[in-house]
Amino acid sequence: MIDLSNEFAIGIDIGGTNTKYGIVNHRGEILEKGEIRTDAYPEVETYVDALYDTLTPLIKQHVNGGIVKGIGVGAPNGNFYTGTIEYAPNLLWKGIIPLTKLVTAKFGLPAALTNDANAAAVGEMNYGAARGMRDFIMITLGTGVGSGIVSNGQLVLGHDGFAGELGHTIIRPGGRKHWSTKLDGSLEAYCSATGIVITAKEMLNESKEDSLLRQFNGKLDSRIVYEQAMKGDKIAQEVYRFTGQILGEALANFIMFSSPEAIILFGGVIKAGDLIMNPTREHMEKNLLPIFQDKVKLIFSELKEADAAILGASALVWEIRE
Amino acid sequence: MIDLSNEFAIGIDIGGTNTKYGIVNHRGEILEKGEIRTDAYPEVETYVDALYDTLTPLIKQHVNGGIVKGIGVGAPNGNFYTGTIEYAPNLLWKGIIPLTKLVTAKFGLPAALTNDANAAAVGEMNYGAARGMRDFIMITLGTGVGSGIVSNGQLVLGHDGFAGELGHTIIRPGGRKHWSTKLDGSLEAYCSATGIVITAKEMLNESKEDSLLRQFNGKLDSRIVYEQAMKGDKIAQEVYRFTGQILGEALANFIMFSSPEAIILFGGVIKAGDLIMNPTREHMEKNLLPIFQDKVKLIFSELKEADAAILGASALVWEIRE
Repeated sequence: MIDLSNEFAIGIDIGGTNTKYGIVNHRGEILEKGEIRTDAYPEVETYVDALYDTLTPLIKQHVNGGIVKGIGVGAPNGNFYTGTIEYAPNLLWKGIIPLTKLVTAKFGLPAALTNDANAAAVGEMNYGAARGMRDFIMITLGTGVGSGIVSNGQLVLGHDGFAGELGHTIIRPGGRKHWSTKLDGSLEAYCSATGIVITAKEMLNESKEDSLLRQFNGKLDSRIVYEQAMKGDKIAQEVYRFTGQILGEALANFIMFSSPEAIILFGGVIKAGDLIMNPTREHMEKNLLPIFQDKVKLIFSELKEADAAILGASALVWEIRE
Repeated sequence: MIDLSNEFAIGIDIGGTNTKYGIVNHRGEILEKGEIRTDAYPEVETYVDALYDTLTPLIKQHVNGGIVKGIGVGAPNGNFYTGTIEYAPNLLWKGIIPLTKLVTAKFGLPAALTNDANAAAVGEMNYGAARGMRDFIMITLGTGVGSGIVSNGQLVLGHDGFAGELGHTIIRPGGRKHWSTKLDGSLEAYCSATGIVITAKEMLNESKEDSLLRQFNGKLDSRIVYEQAMKGDKIAQEVYRFTGQILGEALANFIMFSSPEAIILFGGVIKAGDLIMNPTREHMEKNLLPIFQDKVKLIFSELKEADAAILGASALVWEIRE
């Protein structure tokens, strides 16, 4: 048996404002974590230098005698195949950024890169709810809807590395136009936090029923919809029922594509619990062929939300084949 | 370099009435082919005996000095993982049939089994339009709509072997009820030959326009719709435009799932050529995120329709890892 206890991975999650990093062991325990500003470095080279200067003393301190196997990075528009960040709209570095090449050159360590949702899926597979699974789909339901798909034990990346954009699949042809992509009726237009607020506003407009939501008027956000639904507000609960229906229909389609053992859900939207999960499960099962019914586990992420991005990024390291 | 010229594979395609077989080389050339009745054998054991008695002299005749690497079988509800045919509604053998085990015991050769659409995908990858591709989706548009998905050079089979039922994904929520599955608005309900006839009848009912289709009344079939569309009949052409729109929307969703290099289409429905492909392409591109646009090849199968099932089944043999 190989002793894995002295092997470590660095996980780096690049966001538009901040970059989170962590030193992680094989069990998904974070030995050290912290942040640096992403937007303080208009040049990616000086950003990588800053990461190096921050991480080197921490690595020395925590990994004494152990081996750092590599650096995993989650970033918007991160391409696993090429190791490049490509035209990320919310980063200062424009065009195609050869991130893994720069990281490897600076740290002298192998590096792997993918987008946040794919990293989350690899994190679940290594440390979370998908341990031991070879076929599952991870759906992140937050401000947007992201996804990472694992088939036959491997990330589904597609011929160009961009597979797994399930949030943009069309669930209601001719339906609600997405505020940014302009696609009609995509999953994200309904099942993201933003979509939930739009649904709530639509329902308030179309109904004359009393609702606690009405007092918030222009300042409605998904947290308020959630809180009022938990307090028993009928319209707020109907918002979640409808959101769950759309999500369930979408999941049925995804299941008939890749027949996963489980679908793992992550993000703020699922905090509503049964309010959203009951209709999700109902409409998922209803739209499946019998051979898929009552088979697919619908489960929540087991990674702590604050750490999930770092863990996901670090887990990429265990997938590097040299 | 390994000399493949004296390696051969047996391809067997099991249908409810007939079983087709062929002896195939690495280039996808069929040296010998033929048929036996499937429904003449109520017991699967005697069926396998009959296959053996038929094939053995042919193998001896054609493969002198060469090696038969194995036997690939395409069958309804064929499960690649288990090698079993499971509850196939149109076969006489009920329950779970351990087909590859029986075949291997009788022939003394490795055997592999999957469903027809998966076999077709493997056939395209080995001998057809998907040669050299690692990520593509095969869609068969005939009486039904089948699919085989290849990701990262491997069939997407899912945790239970039943992945790739794209014909049953819901493209029009609350739409046309499928005559057999009872699902509402599935791809097959619209884009199969059966779906096309239903669309034609609906359009004839809803329109008062003159149409050559009206003379066929109760006896309308998809061939007639095709022929009249080619002759310029407006309603028949509108049937194909609508069918292409639904297909294009479905393909956009599939692309955002697995980001294939190409989608390969096969079957009677695509004989209508541009009549269906132009709207398919238009609505596919329209429903894609920009990163997927103008990238995915939409191409026709390169396997002769009469031989495709045998070739697909035989190609499974080259995928067997011992």
